[in-house]
Amino acid sequence: MSRYLSEKYSSLEAYTPGEQPKNMEYVKLNTNESPYPPSKGVTEAVFEESKKLMLYSDPESLYLRQAIASLYGMEPENILPTNGSDEIINFAFMAFCDKDHPIVFPNITYGFYTVFGDINMVPYEEIPLNDDFTINYKDYLNIGKNIIIANPNAPTGIALGLDKIEEIVKSNPNNVVIIDEAYVDFGGESAIPLTKKYDNLLVTQTFSKSRSMAGARLGFGVGNKDLIADLDKIKYSTNPYNVNRMTSAAGIAAIAENEYYMDNARKIISIREYTVSELKKRGFTVLDSSANFIFAKSDRIGGEDLYLKLKENGVLIRHFTNPLIADYNRITIGTKEQMDVFLKQTDRILKQVIK
Amino acid sequence: MSRYLSEKYSSLEAYTPGEQPKNMEYVKLNTNESPYPPSKGVTEAVFEESKKLMLYSDPESLYLRQAIASLYGMEPENILPTNGSDEIINFAFMAFCDKDHPIVFPNITYGFYTVFGDINMVPYEEIPLNDDFTINYKDYLNIGKNIIIANPNAPTGIALGLDKIEEIVKSNPNNVVIIDEAYVDFGGESAIPLTKKYDNLLVTQTFSKSRSMAGARLGFGVGNKDLIADLDKIKYSTNPYNVNRMTSAAGIAAIAENEYYMDNARKIISIREYTVSELKKRGFTVLDSSANFIFAKSDRIGGEDLYLKLKENGVLIRHFTNPLIADYNRITIGTKEQMDVFLKQTDRILKQVIK
Repeated sequence: MSRYLSEKYSSLEAYTPGEQPKNMEYVKLNTNESPYPPSKGVTEAVFEESKKLMLYSDPESLYLRQAIASLYGMEPENILPTNGSDEIINFAFMAFCDKDHPIVFPNITYGFYTVFGDINMVPYEEIPLNDDFTINYKDYLNIGKNIIIANPNAPTGIALGLDKIEEIVKSNPNNVVIIDEAYVDFGGESAIPLTKKYDNLLVTQTFSKSRSMAGARLGFGVGNKDLIADLDKIKYSTNPYNVNRMTSAAGIAAIAENEYYMDNARKIISIREYTVSELKKRGFTVLDSSANFIFAKSDRIGGEDLYLKLKENGVLIRHFTNPLIADYNRITIGTKEQMDVFLKQTDRILKQVIK
Repeated sequence: MSRYLSEKYSSLEAYTPGEQPKNMEYVKLNTNESPYPPSKGVTEAVFEESKKLMLYSDPESLYLRQAIASLYGMEPENILPTNGSDEIINFAFMAFCDKDHPIVFPNITYGFYTVFGDINMVPYEEIPLNDDFTINYKDYLNIGKNIIIANPNAPTGIALGLDKIEEIVKSNPNNVVIIDEAYVDFGGESAIPLTKKYDNLLVTQTFSKSRSMAGARLGFGVGNKDLIADLDKIKYSTNPYNVNRMTSAAGIAAIAENEYYMDNARKIISIREYTVSELKKRGFTVLDSSANFIFAKSDRIGGEDLYLKLKENGVLIRHFTNPLIADYNRITIGTKEQMDVFLKQTDRILKQVIK
């Protein structure tokens, strides 16, 4: 820390992304990336676009907005593309939250929400999950505060039904409800259609997971045009060209080849069910996942211990130190071959554990 | 505006980027883009990287930091790459400025500084330029406030000598001085070496202009490692994967082919000198530019009038409505052929003007 850092940030704790080791090749099941490469149309579109890099990207991202809008039956004015979905969520904290407009979210969820609260000086309250790690939607009815819910939730993978989301949105008409659908394509149900009915609903999604574009940084928000206009104003006041030419072209191409990605999502769901069943055979407790990862614990080995031993053996999964979930690990669903390596190494480790 | 927008932003005026018309092809001299395409190594590196888009980019941008550091004789810990240089400047406003730490800058400069002040609730003071549009560096000595100066300045193009920059930095040891060197490769002198001597100096640059990468969004900051660590904390609290894989690969490749870009910069300087001399023959007043644009006025036609008439005739230049500079236009230096079209159309328009 320099002596010039504003005092308001002196105790800020930044978000810690999953590790991206450079020293060796792991079976990498720690950051919820897709095991499938981008489609051919994406790499071709990127190459063509790379020849025009001397020109600015379109700050309106018009063609990309149009493509996303048509995929979801919306209008371009309902869409704001951003540099990953972290950016649209940060914009929403900036635009709609302040000291008089606090925000609530589950106590176990995407770890970035507390950081977005801290950096934007927004008071937040973390609402405990039920003991089975489900969200009690009644906790959010008539709460009179802004709300952000990841659906499916992370790192639990558990989805909340659309009827319950709607009740939350409907009962808080004077507050913005943000539904973060990063993992929705793996078994959740999107709230995007509800944005036509409720002007206080913002849905965010990302191309990082189901569309194999984590490395391209493309997220977007969907909502009533006035909500989107507010977020657009924040964009034009911080980083007008937030989505670069190559990412924009990649996004448009990925939408044109949507079936490839939805096929991959179906494959991942099927490998997930296989992995869950194999882990349960080994006595693991596995939460009911609608995402491209599972959250699991064994009563034979601690969460951190399993994580460290797997890492020693070339398999990377994600462990969280939060005591409420420290027994668990989050395991990204890769290819069947990757999951078999994970299962084999897990078996080896469990055999070595003194019971 | 929705009824949910935080009151603090209700009167926020966002930045207005230069127009990017989609309706027709212009001779586009309005957003200071390079007329030269990216080098072959860049497009090849982007294509290779596009095959790995399913994996997150390295949040540390380590190899890119190393490449930038070695180009400028610095260490990776002195470098922070960002999603365009707008992002690093916004991070600096966030990190180092607040209501007790205001910032000053010239009254005629990059229009985004006031917006960065407004969105971050940072009080700012605009210091008038001299009548000849130069910066009076003495206005900034011992000022006891943070400072941001574009050098060369925009839209004037006028550069401030490094000795004067150093006096400003040295005389304000308790404040951060940001030197925005977006245009430095066209004739300015970089303050980067001074960051080794002064821990309160942050230099920002961009790959948008001299490195033909406006559409890739790559900027960076250079400074003492503690300053950079503060900015990195802001990054990890808003958008950890701010630089995507393709842009990072493009940046590394562009540095490997640096001579191509420095040759292009020399060509642009030479075309600039040609354009200045042609405009002066036509009676224009042209400020002394060290950038890839010139700032010029004619006493035969108003700035807005010339801008509009050129636009009608397929040539796009940038006009600013600020009354202090409304007689002028900012004209990006393109290829010699583009500048000849601009000159020819200007001649036609001037002939039509009733004197």
